[in-house]
Amino acid sequence: MRPTGKMHIGHYLGALKNWLQLQKEYDCIFGIVDWHALTTSFEHTEDIERNIIDMAVDWFSVGIDPEVCIPMIQSLVPEHAELHLLLSMVTPLGWLERNPVLKQQLQDMGLKEAVGYGHLGYPVLMAADIIIYQGVKVPVGEDQVPHIEIAREMVRRFHFLYQQEVFKEPQPLLTETPRILGIDGRKMSKSLNNAIGLSDTKEELRTKVLSMFTDPEKVRKRDPGHPERCNVFSFHNIVGNPRVEQIEEDCRTGDLGCVDCKKELLGYMVDYLEEITPFRERYQGKDQLVKNILVEGSRKAQTLARETMQKVREAMHIAYQIPR
Amino acid sequence: MRPTGKMHIGHYLGALKNWLQLQKEYDCIFGIVDWHALTTSFEHTEDIERNIIDMAVDWFSVGIDPEVCIPMIQSLVPEHAELHLLLSMVTPLGWLERNPVLKQQLQDMGLKEAVGYGHLGYPVLMAADIIIYQGVKVPVGEDQVPHIEIAREMVRRFHFLYQQEVFKEPQPLLTETPRILGIDGRKMSKSLNNAIGLSDTKEELRTKVLSMFTDPEKVRKRDPGHPERCNVFSFHNIVGNPRVEQIEEDCRTGDLGCVDCKKELLGYMVDYLEEITPFRERYQGKDQLVKNILVEGSRKAQTLARETMQKVREAMHIAYQIPR
Repeated sequence: MRPTGKMHIGHYLGALKNWLQLQKEYDCIFGIVDWHALTTSFEHTEDIERNIIDMAVDWFSVGIDPEVCIPMIQSLVPEHAELHLLLSMVTPLGWLERNPVLKQQLQDMGLKEAVGYGHLGYPVLMAADIIIYQGVKVPVGEDQVPHIEIAREMVRRFHFLYQQEVFKEPQPLLTETPRILGIDGRKMSKSLNNAIGLSDTKEELRTKVLSMFTDPEKVRKRDPGHPERCNVFSFHNIVGNPRVEQIEEDCRTGDLGCVDCKKELLGYMVDYLEEITPFRERYQGKDQLVKNILVEGSRKAQTLARETMQKVREAMHIAYQIPR
Repeated sequence: MRPTGKMHIGHYLGALKNWLQLQKEYDCIFGIVDWHALTTSFEHTEDIERNIIDMAVDWFSVGIDPEVCIPMIQSLVPEHAELHLLLSMVTPLGWLERNPVLKQQLQDMGLKEAVGYGHLGYPVLMAADIIIYQGVKVPVGEDQVPHIEIAREMVRRFHFLYQQEVFKEPQPLLTETPRILGIDGRKMSKSLNNAIGLSDTKEELRTKVLSMFTDPEKVRKRDPGHPERCNVFSFHNIVGNPRVEQIEEDCRTGDLGCVDCKKELLGYMVDYLEEITPFRERYQGKDQLVKNILVEGSRKAQTLARETMQKVREAMHIAYQIPR
């Protein structure tokens, strides 16, 4: 995951909740890919370090368990950069130029031709991140599937060129990611400033929940509402309000006004956020502890990465048999 | 220099002879850039390690002095790969697509569109190789000047983006490189199999010198020749035959036949090669010694590279203040 800073409910429901399950089933490595952040944000790097800590605090708060998985920081394992370079030599430019994810990004960002060399090579670095750990399953959203495909192609090409099976072929682990809307009804996103953060204070939650957009046709309190198109209603479901059926009925009949509905949501929201971040106390504000955990994880990861790199160097005859 | 294996007279006169002077005037780092070899030869890597040793033997034989300069192997200093990755993030793709060296290469190799991602990024890696050591002067041929220009642009862009002066701006150190022809009259080149190697045995030299192409208009021994277009004659100059003026005259008058002329050259050639490789005995066949020197040099280089990388990480806020 790129170091985007504090996590919000969208991150939790779209990724972290899934990771909690995955860490029970697999040997997981969860990477904070700070170099990837540079592909689009190289002009604004001053927040990266703060964002790494904030993100990790939220990971650990929800239960990503450093005793069970390996949380690490990409830039602390420079072997990723070496593998990236070696893969870049065997990657046909055309594979990257045809990358649909990049095409979409350029369109979204209005970048067109002003793309950076490293941005074009995003899939090369991502492939390195995965295959350096012999990763077999990569939990990604639908939009990232082409990158996993490119990674797989690279593995095959490497094996074909050097006639040695050095890597495993990664597969995407698609998870249904519910579309979570922010308080303004647009997709929840930090950059849109409409997100409900996992670490929001009660006061912040109060302000946000009470300003949530509701059914625009329910103008006055007693107007009949349409819960199926109301974001507040969908949040009653998310936070597990047991009265959700009653709310639906009362909204439709006009017996429940939006302000009361939001006030009720607020209470459940506060409880819900507490409930899904059971380890908040242990990590919040403990920057040094969190750093230490990430360094420790990165060192474990590096041990694995080094094993792979030794095989890579041997296969490519760049080994040179020299102790490093 | 790319690890092309044993050096020939063209390498000596075009580069090494110049380096011998440079190591007296500057603090020199001479790098064997094995990763660069992959840009065009990734399909044939099995000779790289042998070529590294053979090339280094010839460097040291002519007098490149590991006590005075730093001879190193690129792949032993993985910091180059990290800097390459970071620079790749700030390098506009257009700079690389417009690189005239690449355009020429693609034309020469008939590659057109089938270029690799890493091949496109050749100047990025080359820039990293130079600026990671705060290199100010880079001895290159005319054809490599655009790469030095790109490196300089990268330095300026980095300084502009991160508002810190981390690197020095490198300048090309152009040296007149005489055009040395091989025994068949084409440009001397290992791949054309027409080269006179610095480590050729007397027997090899005999075969090569006696089969050298001469003035095509001097068919019979007593035909008058044209020394100015005879490659054998130019070699009399190179090896410093004191009789060169007499040879010129006798060739023109037809008093000197080509076979005799070549036989005379052979003697001087043998002496010349001995003379320009005064340390041959010390290094030839001493693979382990040569490896040790290169490892030692690479470790020295790595110490310098790490200093630069710490500044780079700080400037880009990718430092994370963690001991490595």
